[in-house]
Amino acid sequence: MSQFTDVTITREANIYFDGKVTSRSVHFADGSHKTLGIMLPGDYEFGTEAKELMEILAGDLEVQLPGEGWKKVAAGESFEVPANSSFKLKIYAVTDYCCSYF
Amino acid sequence: MSQFTDVTITREANIYFDGKVTSRSVHFADGSHKTLGIMLPGDYEFGTEAKELMEILAGDLEVQLPGEGWKKVAAGESFEVPANSSFKLKIYAVTDYCCSYF
Repeated sequence: MSQFTDVTITREANIYFDGKVTSRSVHFADGSHKTLGIMLPGDYEFGTEAKELMEILAGDLEVQLPGEGWKKVAAGESFEVPANSSFKLKIYAVTDYCCSYF
Repeated sequence: MSQFTDVTITREANIYFDGKVTSRSVHFADGSHKTLGIMLPGDYEFGTEAKELMEILAGDLEVQLPGEGWKKVAAGESFEVPANSSFKLKIYAVTDYCCSYF
């Protein structure tokens, strides 16, 4: 298990797709924030404002980044999504993720 | 929105019932901890070790506490569960909760 220390967490969850995707926002002293989230099996599309780094803590999925084909992503791997774009996901198993924003 | 400040959060989620119930563990400087969790519609039973206070941040459910009948619980309400016991839940809508342990 890994931890984030000396952080602030928003109590209320971010809830998407009828609860099939949910996350908690974690705020750091340097002003940055991350979300720790869960995605249940299904197909999803997300838009981005900032550039995002998605770290997969557990799960099994495929991602389609802008202008690319589908790519398998396993636990321990990560992918980056450009700012002001979108990405598609096929979630095959309950997926636990950490998303960072830049 | 409300927040917990100066806390430590475990990155990896607690995952139950195939992801239909998930939570994050939040640790406080005084050594206590809470979990912030999501329950999707369904019927669940949980056991307790410590006494628990379940605060419902959002959602719609019924709870059956030890030796009691079913009781409706709405967002903004809470219920306590004795230590070393169990409780049953009927979740009718995606439920966001904060659980404290004593």
